[in-house]
Amino acid sequence: MRLACQMHVHADMRVVIPEETRLGDQKILTEGVERAVPLAPNVRKVAVHLPPPSVSDQRADADRLLDSLAEAGLPDLEIEVKTLRDLPERLRALDFHPAVVAISDEVVSVDRPSAAEACYGIALDIGTTTLVGYLTNLVTGRTVAVASRANPQVAYGDDVIARIEYCGNTKSGARTLQTLVLGAMNEMVAEACRKADIRPTMVYEATMVGNTTMNHLLLRLPVRQIARAPFVAASASAHVVSAKDLGLKIHPRGRVYTAPLIASFVGADAVGVILATGLHESHRLRLAIDIGTNGEIVLGTRERLLACSTAAGPAFEGARIRYGMRAATGAIDRVDLVDEKLVLHTIDDAPPVGLCGTGLIDAVAALVEGGVVGSSGRMRSAADLAASRPALARRVVGADGDNGFLLADKKETDSGHPILLTQKDVREVQLAKGAMAAGVVTLLEEYGAKVGDVEEVLLAGAFGNFIRPDRALAIGLLPRVSVEKVKFVGNAAGTGARMLLVNRNLRQVADDVARGVEHVELSQRPDFQMRFAEAMFFPTGKA
Amino acid sequence: MRLACQMHVHADMRVVIPEETRLGDQKILTEGVERAVPLAPNVRKVAVHLPPPSVSDQRADADRLLDSLAEAGLPDLEIEVKTLRDLPERLRALDFHPAVVAISDEVVSVDRPSAAEACYGIALDIGTTTLVGYLTNLVTGRTVAVASRANPQVAYGDDVIARIEYCGNTKSGARTLQTLVLGAMNEMVAEACRKADIRPTMVYEATMVGNTTMNHLLLRLPVRQIARAPFVAASASAHVVSAKDLGLKIHPRGRVYTAPLIASFVGADAVGVILATGLHESHRLRLAIDIGTNGEIVLGTRERLLACSTAAGPAFEGARIRYGMRAATGAIDRVDLVDEKLVLHTIDDAPPVGLCGTGLIDAVAALVEGGVVGSSGRMRSAADLAASRPALARRVVGADGDNGFLLADKKETDSGHPILLTQKDVREVQLAKGAMAAGVVTLLEEYGAKVGDVEEVLLAGAFGNFIRPDRALAIGLLPRVSVEKVKFVGNAAGTGARMLLVNRNLRQVADDVARGVEHVELSQRPDFQMRFAEAMFFPTGKA
Repeated sequence: MRLACQMHVHADMRVVIPEETRLGDQKILTEGVERAVPLAPNVRKVAVHLPPPSVSDQRADADRLLDSLAEAGLPDLEIEVKTLRDLPERLRALDFHPAVVAISDEVVSVDRPSAAEACYGIALDIGTTTLVGYLTNLVTGRTVAVASRANPQVAYGDDVIARIEYCGNTKSGARTLQTLVLGAMNEMVAEACRKADIRPTMVYEATMVGNTTMNHLLLRLPVRQIARAPFVAASASAHVVSAKDLGLKIHPRGRVYTAPLIASFVGADAVGVILATGLHESHRLRLAIDIGTNGEIVLGTRERLLACSTAAGPAFEGARIRYGMRAATGAIDRVDLVDEKLVLHTIDDAPPVGLCGTGLIDAVAALVEGGVVGSSGRMRSAADLAASRPALARRVVGADGDNGFLLADKKETDSGHPILLTQKDVREVQLAKGAMAAGVVTLLEEYGAKVGDVEEVLLAGAFGNFIRPDRALAIGLLPRVSVEKVKFVGNAAGTGARMLLVNRNLRQVADDVARGVEHVELSQRPDFQMRFAEAMFFPTGKA
Repeated sequence: MRLACQMHVHADMRVVIPEETRLGDQKILTEGVERAVPLAPNVRKVAVHLPPPSVSDQRADADRLLDSLAEAGLPDLEIEVKTLRDLPERLRALDFHPAVVAISDEVVSVDRPSAAEACYGIALDIGTTTLVGYLTNLVTGRTVAVASRANPQVAYGDDVIARIEYCGNTKSGARTLQTLVLGAMNEMVAEACRKADIRPTMVYEATMVGNTTMNHLLLRLPVRQIARAPFVAASASAHVVSAKDLGLKIHPRGRVYTAPLIASFVGADAVGVILATGLHESHRLRLAIDIGTNGEIVLGTRERLLACSTAAGPAFEGARIRYGMRAATGAIDRVDLVDEKLVLHTIDDAPPVGLCGTGLIDAVAALVEGGVVGSSGRMRSAADLAASRPALARRVVGADGDNGFLLADKKETDSGHPILLTQKDVREVQLAKGAMAAGVVTLLEEYGAKVGDVEEVLLAGAFGNFIRPDRALAIGLLPRVSVEKVKFVGNAAGTGARMLLVNRNLRQVADDVARGVEHVELSQRPDFQMRFAEAMFFPTGKA
């Protein structure tokens, strides 16, 4: 096992890329909480019958069309010069009975009424690691097909900081990353359209939520200043760009709406989570945690919302963990300790290949429960454990110059290597969960509330959805609330994108939310550093 | 003298194009009535000082800029993604002290404050025959330079109908005509900027008035349906297009506003005349006549405005007149009859070359006054006149198989041919003035008023400004009002374009005017045909 970047190639060689590092058929969470949203899409399609012109009715073609559309319930529309260029010929060819598509306040298509049945939009959740697209019928409001992909930008860095650095170091870096994500987005559009048996030109609008870096990389806005203190975005506003100009292969006159951002590390995905969970409308104090590649935390009520982001880091996505991997076939996703006996579960019940995020949390929780790992995070040696926990002690072996815990030995795996949880892995988990927990504590203090005041803890995001709350509570990843208060909201960011697609009025709400949320910048606060240090301990270490 | 289209070329030949048909240094009226307009331009430039970002002020660059602009009195602006792409770098390079240009509600330029002094706009009057551009300082509201040109589309037809036919007959005809007029517009921009010693990139907006065909040809909207019953425009609305997309060489992010139209043959030039003369605000019944290549007539008060157009035709611009020419050097522009003696005046006092519009009216008036032409328009023969008007009788000669009147003989001219007014020329004048007069009568009747009720007759347009009112009254080109009621308003359409440039609020007024004016379609009215026939007679024929 070698790092490709550390190898010189001197002769022909065979390269085997281990399963656990491949972007395979990854489990991507596409489902989210469903909220009843009144249907008021930004794209509308209607067939109209115009009175043909005569000497007693010499209205210009454009006025004639707009007057009829107003009568059909679509007032105050405009027609761009581009569209007007073939309007006279088109209206006459259609005997003045066209079907019209309007996006926002603009007529973008004048076509045969036989094509009048439906029009579609696609809601896009553009994550650092995963991409999801929800193809939606804008007449019924129903999601008709879903497609997902790994974000191909991963090849240039696991997290947003690495990608921002890549853009800074490489002349055409920003363009490369934009091209990559657009390519994947276009694949998703094509795939979803194939599934729904429609043409991509029947898709007139895309809404997009993503963190600030994903948003800026997609729009090719500069990202350098995001990663440097004082960490500012180029723009936090919602934008509407032409699909054609951007390169998204939907209807050429279609548009892409990107939802507004809160701060450099609290993006439109957090806005989506707020919309989907209704945090901005609730009287009860609630906490939403989106554990993605970054951990974003929102706390509050309709009166006041606070948000922060923490470097939860990609540990839960398999990065920086010795045998870490994404949640794909063969990943150990559940670990239980039953009478000193380890019970493993793998995705698709395949032979174990590595450890994904939920398995990692479970494994650490099991070791803490079993007394292998103390409250400080220190893994005890085999000798130390031999007397009290003989079965577990046998699994403690040397690894990377320190202790390691054998989850599966060579014979049990398909990959020819054992699967260990190393001391360093435990430290990574401590850093990640410590950051998350300290973020929650800081927000609570800033809000003037105690953990007990929180009435609901909402877990959002791909990862959050698969976590077992009791395990997360056991290692202190979540604040100490009773387990019934923990709710899963699935891919709430994606739900937010869908809501913004089917109801244009929510875009104003999104603007208000994005502007109204108080962002708490943790990185420069001495009190956060102290809480972070405290939160790295495990709450219930028995040894 | 041969028509080029009727000649076969069999061998080398020398072609001489006579002076009177050349597009030379034509006299183009650029001055118009001045109306006090509050300065409220659509383009605004302001220098701002932004507080630099810090950990306690992490607003995105765009929000930081917009907040400062709002404090500086420019609220509710937006910044396009294109502009955002270099905003972070630019703001930092300028130490957060930029000068910003906003057009309408959008930031289009963020630049060094040293370039902050002024910004400019250009008002364009795009006529069938002539083009005028008024370069205006948008900080002071003053016109700083004027440029004018003959419309090079003239090569493809004297009037709008000929140009529409050209577009229909030739595949790339529309594009050719657009390219031609844009070329001339760019020349005018460059010339005006040279005169004012500024760079064309300091010009951020152009406003344009033109008749419906000129408007459509410039925007490359289809024109075919304009010329065919029931004569409808593709669009009568105002439009805003990107200068770069259109091809107008001002600031690349600059915009072109085209004023709204009333009907197919009553265009934005008529809207400009209404704004400039305040017809839409007046309680007194007034009549505005713009005698261009088409004659446009507006009648009414603030309560009600009626408009029509008549085929005044290019007769007054020299077309279809045997020795007709444009108002250039050597054109006979004034003809008086003093005791049976003809007194001619030519432009620049040059030897006579031909007859321009005002000279044509004067000549016909003189012949009517002198009894050479009767009320029916029939020119009496030399024999007929010999007894009563011996001096005039000598000038009546044969021409084109009928009578003609010698204005200047071969020896007096520089061109080697005499200058005659033919019977056919008189008929052309009768058709043109008959159409104008019948239009006025029809509008008056539609309005329910009599000629005597009209309190003011406003003559607009290049041609109208040089007419001698008593002569125009004498041949019945103008309705029979007392001569003191006739006022010149110069290039009122151009004044309207300037008003729309310096005060953006007038654009809403222009929309209301364009929508509110009742268009009276003359072409299909039997009563108009009858009035037209009546109006062809000369009012005071003595013979």
